[in-house]
Amino acid sequence: MNYNDFFAREIAALKDEGNYREFAELERRRGAFPSATCHNGPADVTIWCSNDYLGMGQHPKVLEAMHTALDRSGAGAGGTRNISGTTHDHVVLEAELADLHGKEAALLFTSGYVSNWAALGTLASRIPGCVVLSDALNHASMIEGIRHSKAQKVIWRHNDLADLEAKLKALPANAPKLIAFESVYSMDGDIAPIKEICDLADRYGAMTYLDEVHAVGLYGPRGGGIAEREGLMDRLTVIEGTLGKAFGVVGGYIAASAELCDFVRSFASGFIFTTALPPCVAAGAAASIQHLKTSLAERSAQQDRVATVRRRLEAIGLPHIDNPSHIIPVMVGDPVKCKFISDTLLKEHGIYIQPINYPTVPKGTERLRITPSPVHSAADIDTLIDALEDLWTRCQLARRPMAAQ
Amino acid sequence: MNYNDFFAREIAALKDEGNYREFAELERRRGAFPSATCHNGPADVTIWCSNDYLGMGQHPKVLEAMHTALDRSGAGAGGTRNISGTTHDHVVLEAELADLHGKEAALLFTSGYVSNWAALGTLASRIPGCVVLSDALNHASMIEGIRHSKAQKVIWRHNDLADLEAKLKALPANAPKLIAFESVYSMDGDIAPIKEICDLADRYGAMTYLDEVHAVGLYGPRGGGIAEREGLMDRLTVIEGTLGKAFGVVGGYIAASAELCDFVRSFASGFIFTTALPPCVAAGAAASIQHLKTSLAERSAQQDRVATVRRRLEAIGLPHIDNPSHIIPVMVGDPVKCKFISDTLLKEHGIYIQPINYPTVPKGTERLRITPSPVHSAADIDTLIDALEDLWTRCQLARRPMAAQ
Ligand SMILES: Cc1ncc(COP(=O)(O)O)c(C=O)c1O
Ligand SMILES: Cc1ncc(COP(=O)(O)O)c(C=O)c1O
Repeated sequence: MNYNDFFAREIAALKDEGNYREFAELERRRGAFPSATCHNGPADVTIWCSNDYLGMGQHPKVLEAMHTALDRSGAGAGGTRNISGTTHDHVVLEAELADLHGKEAALLFTSGYVSNWAALGTLASRIPGCVVLSDALNHASMIEGIRHSKAQKVIWRHNDLADLEAKLKALPANAPKLIAFESVYSMDGDIAPIKEICDLADRYGAMTYLDEVHAVGLYGPRGGGIAEREGLMDRLTVIEGTLGKAFGVVGGYIAASAELCDFVRSFASGFIFTTALPPCVAAGAAASIQHLKTSLAERSAQQDRVATVRRRLEAIGLPHIDNPSHIIPVMVGDPVKCKFISDTLLKEHGIYIQPINYPTVPKGTERLRITPSPVHSAADIDTLIDALEDLWTRCQLARRPMAAQ
Repeated sequence: MNYNDFFAREIAALKDEGNYREFAELERRRGAFPSATCHNGPADVTIWCSNDYLGMGQHPKVLEAMHTALDRSGAGAGGTRNISGTTHDHVVLEAELADLHGKEAALLFTSGYVSNWAALGTLASRIPGCVVLSDALNHASMIEGIRHSKAQKVIWRHNDLADLEAKLKALPANAPKLIAFESVYSMDGDIAPIKEICDLADRYGAMTYLDEVHAVGLYGPRGGGIAEREGLMDRLTVIEGTLGKAFGVVGGYIAASAELCDFVRSFASGFIFTTALPPCVAAGAAASIQHLKTSLAERSAQQDRVATVRRRLEAIGLPHIDNPSHIIPVMVGDPVKCKFISDTLLKEHGIYIQPINYPTVPKGTERLRITPSPVHSAADIDTLIDALEDLWTRCQLARRPMAAQ
């Protein structure tokens, strides 16, 4: 077998179906974000698709904490958490995270992806007979973790309480159960009925595992997420989050009881056998969380920008999913057109919005996923809306309001 | 089911068998490494078990690159590689890595663990009928990746060419095959016969996947690893490495043909669905690699310290695995004694060497894994040897030379 030919053919097939991905090569400009230099496109671009939702990636407190930690402790952690890689910065950050979610403990991972994969994989495989009830639209990292566990998996219809209840009821009453779901779903921006899911969990003796990756830092009086906003944090068995989106750095975590965290810490391959995050990353994330625990300015400015962009899209009749979150999916429904619009926005208008194609979203639901942030100005919004209006006309795309999916 | 009780019981069982892990909470002191402050032990400790093998985690060039990138681009990447998270620093680092290994391309991951898991998982699952031939002592991240692929897996005896050949021969001649192995094995420090494995791969039409995590930066004229030292880089299909050990930062990668890297880039869940490494991490790693491509001082000083520690251990008859690498495993063979020795070294001598117990090594082979580095002084070595000698006497542990396992 000629392996390279095989790879080349698979890549060619992706290109044919319009799903080949080209990465924009950016250089964010600290202090000027969402402006960036683009190395493989027009020199000056405005980023409209970042998950640095609040611009915390350039916040002076975050950067100062990172500079200070670099000067104090150097670059890497130098080992796994067990073998010389646990630093004071990791311990402080874990305490900060436990406090954020009102839990006894928290456990850091190298990413949100790894936290889902490792925590779900460990819980579901090590609790004898555990059945995982997984929302149909759960993120790839949760799916892989559940799959990795080899536990029985029951998929319930997205955000559908009746279906979840039917599936819980069908399982043996004494089987250990784990309901895995997200608060804000990243591609549609809709929000799960957390309280009702917790009620069902209580009724059927299930644990709850909530991914708040697209909500931490953004919702709740201290940025604890949707569960904090709705006063539900104590009802969740595990809250999982990322340090790489609203908190602006990188890394992931779970927050839960001391016993659960100690259990995952002790048995999860993806936690044990990998180099710990650099102390400066931990210090930067801790500074970001601390700041957002008391500052409301970023969250309210973001909500204001989101409302404005939504209103302006509606005014020109552009199809977007009307959801209760900060994520604005403008629907195109075709991978080639979606890429064309994105390319043209970049080339002609200096607007960078990556097309979202399969496998990130189902085929036929290709979209531009717009994430307004406090650092986008009124002029940025004008430019964006004018460009989209122009392109929708040029591409003869439908204009109509769209309901939440 | 009371879930928390279950977790507590499992933890209690770990404690009973002496395998419960307590993390030393350190604060590395930049410029004074291997000295560190210990927050849950004696204030001043010397670290003897770090994987920052060359002290690059405090190298001025690495830190300067990180400070500069922080000032230029801020903290996090703000997105996945596809959605606004590819920065110029990532692209430069990937070019640096491809060059280091003489390959057409390289692909970055958030860690070495994720690079193994995602690359092996993707290759083995997406090449129809692929059979993976996996060395019996491969790292957890490789094992999980292969398991994740659901491909047929054939385990061959550690570093045993006859067994590998027998297993290759037993497979259908036209089945796609992938031989996965490491160069320097992290816990025993022995080195694979790479040339002979490549010869077998050629004879039986197999791809080769080499984990050089404990070798990159350390061996070869430019720090390309054992394969570089032996002039074999072009014979390997994939070379995998980490940025978190000898390079002193964090992250992982593969280097391979352009087609293979593009294939993994396009299909690997663990690459696609996760926030990219911060630009400052990429910049720091690139500076470290660049430095070690031309500077031999760190490598030769390390080899000198390793030889000295080995000689001194032999002089006092302490059992250690006599391998051809920089890793010195001093064998204890009992988890409780191993922990006692480690605790006493820390408390009485300010020497930090984490005990290595199950599941990192098989039960009965518990050990102290010592990693001398250029930053350990002659006085540090004296203190270490005196303390070990004292403890071996106190614990009435055997003194005998040990052959490589
Ligand atoms: C819902 C969800 N969970 C987890 C992750 C992974 O988090 P991280 O980017 O920190 O790996 C993502 C996206 O990246 C996500 O969208
Ligand atoms: C052989 C081997 N491969 C891969 C890894 C994972 O690399 P990283 O620490 O960058 O996740 C490790 C250790 O951590 C290792 O020992």
